[in-house]
Amino acid sequence: MSVTAAKGFTASGIAAGIKENGNPDLALVVNNGPKLAAAGVFTSNRVKAAPVLWSEQVLKGGELTAVVLNSGGANACTGPKGFQDTHATAEKVAESLNTAGLDETGGHAAGMIAVCSTGLIGLLLPMDKLLPGVDKAVAQLSPHGGEKAAIAIKTTDSVHKTAVAGGNGWTVGGMAKGAGMLAPGLATMLVVLTTDADVESDVLDRALRAATRTTFDRVDSDGCMSTNDTVLLLASGASQVTPDDAEFAEAVRKVCDDLAQQLIRDAEGASKDIKVEVVNAASEDDAVEVGRSIARNNLLKCAIHGEDPNWGRVLSAIGTTRAAFEPDQLNVAINGVWVCKNGGVGEDRDKVDMRYREVHIIADLAAGGESATIWTNDLTADYVHENSAYSS
Amino acid sequence: MSVTAAKGFTASGIAAGIKENGNPDLALVVNNGPKLAAAGVFTSNRVKAAPVLWSEQVLKGGELTAVVLNSGGANACTGPKGFQDTHATAEKVAESLNTAGLDETGGHAAGMIAVCSTGLIGLLLPMDKLLPGVDKAVAQLSPHGGEKAAIAIKTTDSVHKTAVAGGNGWTVGGMAKGAGMLAPGLATMLVVLTTDADVESDVLDRALRAATRTTFDRVDSDGCMSTNDTVLLLASGASQVTPDDAEFAEAVRKVCDDLAQQLIRDAEGASKDIKVEVVNAASEDDAVEVGRSIARNNLLKCAIHGEDPNWGRVLSAIGTTRAAFEPDQLNVAINGVWVCKNGGVGEDRDKVDMRYREVHIIADLAAGGESATIWTNDLTADYVHENSAYSS
Repeated sequence: MSVTAAKGFTASGIAAGIKENGNPDLALVVNNGPKLAAAGVFTSNRVKAAPVLWSEQVLKGGELTAVVLNSGGANACTGPKGFQDTHATAEKVAESLNTAGLDETGGHAAGMIAVCSTGLIGLLLPMDKLLPGVDKAVAQLSPHGGEKAAIAIKTTDSVHKTAVAGGNGWTVGGMAKGAGMLAPGLATMLVVLTTDADVESDVLDRALRAATRTTFDRVDSDGCMSTNDTVLLLASGASQVTPDDAEFAEAVRKVCDDLAQQLIRDAEGASKDIKVEVVNAASEDDAVEVGRSIARNNLLKCAIHGEDPNWGRVLSAIGTTRAAFEPDQLNVAINGVWVCKNGGVGEDRDKVDMRYREVHIIADLAAGGESATIWTNDLTADYVHENSAYSS
Repeated sequence: MSVTAAKGFTASGIAAGIKENGNPDLALVVNNGPKLAAAGVFTSNRVKAAPVLWSEQVLKGGELTAVVLNSGGANACTGPKGFQDTHATAEKVAESLNTAGLDETGGHAAGMIAVCSTGLIGLLLPMDKLLPGVDKAVAQLSPHGGEKAAIAIKTTDSVHKTAVAGGNGWTVGGMAKGAGMLAPGLATMLVVLTTDADVESDVLDRALRAATRTTFDRVDSDGCMSTNDTVLLLASGASQVTPDDAEFAEAVRKVCDDLAQQLIRDAEGASKDIKVEVVNAASEDDAVEVGRSIARNNLLKCAIHGEDPNWGRVLSAIGTTRAAFEPDQLNVAINGVWVCKNGGVGEDRDKVDMRYREVHIIADLAAGGESATIWTNDLTADYVHENSAYSS
């Protein structure tokens, strides 16, 4: 399914040799039209990788003919040479597509091609391998290439991630990669969504921003914000159906939510998926702030790993926020047991069953009617091991 | 040395049976005057333990005759009963001291006795053990009891922590406990400092706030803020010397700095002590914000554990802040090697020697002349193990 579930798109995923282990590392997604509308959301990290700076610029026109993605190197903190490499990659994709005669949409130009990179920060990409890889990726483009593209963007991901939703005669599909450095203002992820709905770029933009705000933005695996996060949405219009805006937005949200859940389930070293639901907050912002504070508390994340319903660490995390609440009115449930009532000891903590992978924490602020859910993971020795050995 | 290094103080540390393993768990520090001046600094967590609420109130008078401290239970999130227990503890200390005839300073009253507790959140203290323990602690008060007091406040600390400094004829001494939940606005620590200098409570307050701001406040082992942090400074005036304000403040700073360093070196599960020095910042606030962001980056802390000079994770952490900087002007040194220059690849990372316990990261923002240093630790499987098993 993936990015080729929607009509009007071809994709491929190949091994260009960027990764030393020979695994697939280059993906290409091409919009064959008739429309070329596109929207994007990028990391809010102020240290942005070269491909993020490039793609933000390219997206200003509201149209894309293709997206090229590589794993095996983030091309972040690589200076002017890194940016030149991103530019050269886009030029090469345009040239190769035009040479192959895949120019139904009026010919390709670098200025309409987004570039995404993922991998280690601070290394220049091996352009002598990447550029020939582009030719290979163009040669393998297929309307069934979505899965291969999803596989080629994996880094420490244990599985590739795809999702699909849609309505009467139209489809939204997507792929994602991400396992570590999952955090706010987008996790370390690359996501490409495609649709054959006949919608303009402003509709895409609104639907994408609304969807990421309550899905990818609320995945907070380890509190670390990436330099490369990118979520793109491309529309081909090939279905010739223009859905109702709300219906379209909901399909985009569903695909984003599905992919976000897959990211959490595949987080590095995790043994628990933790749903932190903040209820009865004075505002949604309060709920998100409290949810993030709980989700980022290393002591709590260790306790959950040890299947210990340590609600004191939840209260301690809530206490560091600016949200409206009174300490003696806070309530906390862990897996359905209200272990903390009115800021003190509640039901017997021995009643809490924590044997399963999913853990559900409810923090009741008793301060209003707003709520928000943040997804995170436990902190494990495997996380430490994986991230202490990643680049060496 | 510890809290009895300064003249005019007696102390004790005994096993009251609060800890099930029989280890010492109750400490008492008494100011025998002639002065009773005192100042305190408390956690900025909005969920404050009962003893913090009590001691903040008591300190408003600017005088203390005694401090009673227990390990084995934080008395946090324990509701009205927890506060009553704290009050009863202070009453018991006053009564027991008066009964023992230790009332040289005009008799003891609960309203001049600070209470500190440390241990698990959400459990009521075993008052049937604690209150008789107070009599035992009073009976063992001694001008040489400082070490025993320091031992009795340990929780997961592997060693007890004491420090001393001073000037001509006067002394500042102190004890501290703390190993996990070390974070901003004070780490999970209890600290009692004493001095025989003849100084008023406003001088104590200024010296203590100035000292904690650049010592305990800049220890950030795991980003988790406690509900119980308390730092107290008591003056007996017994030396009959009134030092110069600046000289006195510097002695207080030295003792705080010494104890803060001991806290970092004893942090739970840590294998590296990491000094994060931010230089050339536009403001001290910027330097602190960037330092904290680096110090709290789990991915970087894992990399340091793996002796991997992963400077990309430093830049990624800097990029999440609001501090003034240009991404292409950032420089980073790890153990003296400038691995990142102008936001890109610098000297060869293989030159970085990370075999030793202390790791020194310099982040140069190239945006001004201010600086700040934050101390943290690496993230290890031992930290995960210790904190996933703590309460079970």
